[in-house]
Amino acid sequence: ILGLKLRLLGLVEKIWKLGVDDPRRVVHGLKVGISLTLVSLFYYMRPLYDGVGGTAMWAVMTVVVVFEFTVGATLSKGLNRGMATLLAGSLAIGIHWIANQLGDQADPIIRSTAVFLLASVATFSRFIPIVKTRFDYGVSIFILTFSLVSVSGYRVEELVVFARHRLYTIAIGGSVCMLISMLICPNWAGGDLHQLITRNMEKLACSLERCVSEYFEDSECLDPKEEPCQGFQGYKCVLNSKATEETLANFARWEPAHGCFSFRHPWKQYIKIGTVMRHCAYCVEALEASINSDNKAPEFIKKHFREVFMRLSSHSSNVLRELAAATKTMRKSSNLDLLVEEMKMAVGELQSSLRYFPHQLIPPPIEATEDKRAPAHAPPTHVPFMEVLPLVTAASLLIEIVVRIEGLVDAVDE
Amino acid sequence: ILGLKLRLLGLVEKIWKLGVDDPRRVVHGLKVGISLTLVSLFYYMRPLYDGVGGTAMWAVMTVVVVFEFTVGATLSKGLNRGMATLLAGSLAIGIHWIANQLGDQADPIIRSTAVFLLASVATFSRFIPIVKTRFDYGVSIFILTFSLVSVSGYRVEELVVFARHRLYTIAIGGSVCMLISMLICPNWAGGDLHQLITRNMEKLACSLERCVSEYFEDSECLDPKEEPCQGFQGYKCVLNSKATEETLANFARWEPAHGCFSFRHPWKQYIKIGTVMRHCAYCVEALEASINSDNKAPEFIKKHFREVFMRLSSHSSNVLRELAAATKTMRKSSNLDLLVEEMKMAVGELQSSLRYFPHQLIPPPIEATEDKRAPAHAPPTHVPFMEVLPLVTAASLLIEIVVRIEGLVDAVDE
Repeated sequence: ILGLKLRLLGLVEKIWKLGVDDPRRVVHGLKVGISLTLVSLFYYMRPLYDGVGGTAMWAVMTVVVVFEFTVGATLSKGLNRGMATLLAGSLAIGIHWIANQLGDQADPIIRSTAVFLLASVATFSRFIPIVKTRFDYGVSIFILTFSLVSVSGYRVEELVVFARHRLYTIAIGGSVCMLISMLICPNWAGGDLHQLITRNMEKLACSLERCVSEYFEDSECLDPKEEPCQGFQGYKCVLNSKATEETLANFARWEPAHGCFSFRHPWKQYIKIGTVMRHCAYCVEALEASINSDNKAPEFIKKHFREVFMRLSSHSSNVLRELAAATKTMRKSSNLDLLVEEMKMAVGELQSSLRYFPHQLIPPPIEATEDKRAPAHAPPTHVPFMEVLPLVTAASLLIEIVVRIEGLVDAVDE
Repeated sequence: ILGLKLRLLGLVEKIWKLGVDDPRRVVHGLKVGISLTLVSLFYYMRPLYDGVGGTAMWAVMTVVVVFEFTVGATLSKGLNRGMATLLAGSLAIGIHWIANQLGDQADPIIRSTAVFLLASVATFSRFIPIVKTRFDYGVSIFILTFSLVSVSGYRVEELVVFARHRLYTIAIGGSVCMLISMLICPNWAGGDLHQLITRNMEKLACSLERCVSEYFEDSECLDPKEEPCQGFQGYKCVLNSKATEETLANFARWEPAHGCFSFRHPWKQYIKIGTVMRHCAYCVEALEASINSDNKAPEFIKKHFREVFMRLSSHSSNVLRELAAATKTMRKSSNLDLLVEEMKMAVGELQSSLRYFPHQLIPPPIEATEDKRAPAHAPPTHVPFMEVLPLVTAASLLIEIVVRIEGLVDAVDE
């Protein structure tokens, strides 16, 4: 029983943490509650209830189904639902009229055939990429309304009234959702996307810097009190945020102007930036692997390269940070060009220090006499190349990262 | 007008291709059509229609909403919907009973409060990770049914009958969906996942092999007639399939035993394999970048390393192919250990050929006199180290890839 109690407590704590981490989640819950209560007023007030012919439940249903966490998602679903209902309703009434003209015998056959054909075609159309990303929900509501209205025509006397009521109630439910989601503490998908991108840039900068400084054991730079996700595993967030970025960008497209974003804000550009960032992150991943590899370079070589590596990594993460800041404020940074130049210079330094690399493999004279690590079959004054391989790889990956950061700079210059 | 016609033709062609590429899509469309037509029979047959009190439309709705492309998704939605309706219905009837006891004045207030509270809490619970991945749809239906039934209680006389009808019709619609999706050409999410994973392994093998052979311009190995996705861009599919894998694994969990998969098949293992594969793919990405870099290693060095590189890459892609085959048949391959040993030996060869690498930077005597590429300030007999940097990096990445493939071998040994 105690074990159960502890587990329950752990669960409660986790749930509590969900709310504390992002209070917007709690607010979202309350918003849904408010909308539902508002809509259910239709049931309690006679005139309202009669006004929509007792089909008030469609409004309730709309609220439950349409209300989503971000404004963009709510708008996209609400508009999809509204348009699909209108379209499918008119089509179904057309079919109803035809079926009525042809007499009682043919009636159910025509209705069934129409439902079968339209449902099949519409379902298939959901595989078309543009429909899938933007109108998937609309198509499903289209099928739903069409089958409902056209089939009901067999029983319901005044089909037009029935269809109109469905449209009204859905419009009421949908607009309650959209208004509440926009007016009470709105969660803009666009804002979230913007934040995600800038935060990912910062994370990338952090992990790049820490990766290198950890290798050279520069412990003064490491502040253990930093947030864990800000640590050098941050690039993993960048690797995994593809799906989130795409969903948010898709919803952001539906949102009206808000804050510093205009209506036709180039959201696609964010996806592009995200892709380029993931490109960088792949390299950081490989960099981390080569740094954590078992082959450790001898100390004297590490010391020799420490300066150049550290400078390059700090310059390139400065560029990333500046980019993040520029994206955050959506202004062109005046510093950026300077920083990029500095980064390029650091690359040049690294390259020229690598130019005579093979000669540096000869350890300094004092150590050379005591060096026991060099295997007997290697020429006595040379460090085996395998030992420095990770260092060389890291250098080359850093240079590649710089190239990709330059690509990122271009992408941010929308 | 001609432009419009051409664009329309292009669209039609694209849609046609969608169907030809995967005929299951067309079949899926037809299946939805059939289910809808079956369910709409309820409207045409008097006894059936009266049997569910004229609420036959819930069945139509269930079919439209529940029928998904894979069996797993359909089952998950259908079961979620059924359970949620049952639970919410009972709860709502309980609230209805309490509201009735407390008299007419308090009635709407109690109902509204209950709806508000439950909707808020349930909406918030959708942020809990396990609810989000597995029961998201169920919670939404729970809110829906609860609000509908509890609010309707204010108008509908026989609430229990109303709730029971809703449950019946949903059960009918849901079982029609589940049966048809399982019996007529089923698309198992598990099978899809299995195929995706094995195909990705093959793609990874292909791109690894081609990447290296393209670098050494070994054109005899390149067959231009191969499928484009089988080409050396194949690793990109691996990088991007994270979301698909997770969705499929999530749905596969709901599926009953089918084909060679038992009910509790370890689907989670597939996600793990996918993650390890993506790990390999990151390295392949970096490898490709270093191979396509501007610094071209001199021919004589390339020639020197060609053998070792090619052997290692072909051995490691053989391991991947063998793994794919083993996963496909779900049998332990007897060859695998041998292939892994061969791969390790190839790594050893590469390592030992790199050991004396710096000495090899001196070009063969004939070329040395004609070599104009070596910059003046470098020692005349040495190739600048920057030129061979990509080669060295590639070697180190290949070794890293081998380490990761070994991880993959472990992961596949479920």
